[in-house]
Amino acid sequence: MRPPAKGDTPVRKALMRTPGSRRDTTWPLIRAAGIDLLYEFGYENMNTRQLATSVGLKPGSLYYYFNSKEELLHQLVMELLQDIVDDLEKRLDGVDNATTRLSVFIETLVKWHVDNHKESYIARMEVRSLSPDKHETYMFLRDRFDSRLDDILLQGHTDGVFREDPDHLTRISVLTMITGITGWYRPMGGAGTPRLTEYYTDLVFRMVSQTPPTD
Amino acid sequence: MRPPAKGDTPVRKALMRTPGSRRDTTWPLIRAAGIDLLYEFGYENMNTRQLATSVGLKPGSLYYYFNSKEELLHQLVMELLQDIVDDLEKRLDGVDNATTRLSVFIETLVKWHVDNHKESYIARMEVRSLSPDKHETYMFLRDRFDSRLDDILLQGHTDGVFREDPDHLTRISVLTMITGITGWYRPMGGAGTPRLTEYYTDLVFRMVSQTPPTD
Repeated sequence: MRPPAKGDTPVRKALMRTPGSRRDTTWPLIRAAGIDLLYEFGYENMNTRQLATSVGLKPGSLYYYFNSKEELLHQLVMELLQDIVDDLEKRLDGVDNATTRLSVFIETLVKWHVDNHKESYIARMEVRSLSPDKHETYMFLRDRFDSRLDDILLQGHTDGVFREDPDHLTRISVLTMITGITGWYRPMGGAGTPRLTEYYTDLVFRMVSQTPPTD
Repeated sequence: MRPPAKGDTPVRKALMRTPGSRRDTTWPLIRAAGIDLLYEFGYENMNTRQLATSVGLKPGSLYYYFNSKEELLHQLVMELLQDIVDDLEKRLDGVDNATTRLSVFIETLVKWHVDNHKESYIARMEVRSLSPDKHETYMFLRDRFDSRLDDILLQGHTDGVFREDPDHLTRISVLTMITGITGWYRPMGGAGTPRLTEYYTDLVFRMVSQTPPTD
């Protein structure tokens, strides 16, 4: 088995298309083990030898899946981000009303950060370790996700339901507040997804509504 | 010059009290260079040899100021956090009204994150690298800062100006939204402190007010 050619991104499509490989079954194991190691040790301190051990492969075999530790990190964060982009677009499909679209956006973002605690922590802390070109592809995809919120806020403003100035600070404030879940949420205790979704939905609508709700 | 004894914390007091040392003039240089290196290279990738070079000291001389790279990081983040705690407590002194106290809290937090971009980035990204005991002292002090917001929200609720449930999610949401400035703000362009302060003050009051303002 030869290492994959450098140009075969988007990653997942390439993985899917490799004929005759065991990628469809082995990659999810590598991915899960990679997430655990990155979460526990951090990018700088983990190594692919640990990863090989935990999935029962020889270190050399990993190069069939990625060429370097950095490429592993890049593949993981790109896949995860693609997952949430796909999920969001599926949920928004056919939903026209700006208020409902905003609710869907909030719900998706909260759920993803609660359900994927380790993954979102890795994305938050380790994306900075990517080289500029890989970092750029990540940011490009993230902008695509974030721009959905811009579109929704603008639509709501045009429809007269959201406040005067849906500028970039509103977008950033909503995103940092919800993605901040990663910084404090621990799956073991406290509020679950429904409670958090309800809470953040209320907060965000207070932030953006033309006439915020009264208690 | 012998290394300082391990017990001489709080750090800054110990530094101030060392008689006959050049700490009062050298430590600020080390601190500034340490912040630059930690910001540029990250904790895992920086080393104290670089630090010695950039302040013109022999590597061995640094051990007069700290015993390890980890102790350097701990000293830096503890000093920075102590600075904002002191600043906040000075600004709140004599201010009784919950609404004004909340405005002061927001203003202090925004200003600190804008004016100390590198420092707050280091605190955000690198505190996790501290050993459990050092991490605990940091979190203890941060809780002291954060608890001021709890007190203000509770006071405002008791006074009937803030909403029904000033629970921990409100605290967390306000804090993650504003400290999130660190994740996107670049000192070179865009909104300055007054604009950001005005913006976040509006958002937070929308979030916590009994009767949120209408546009």
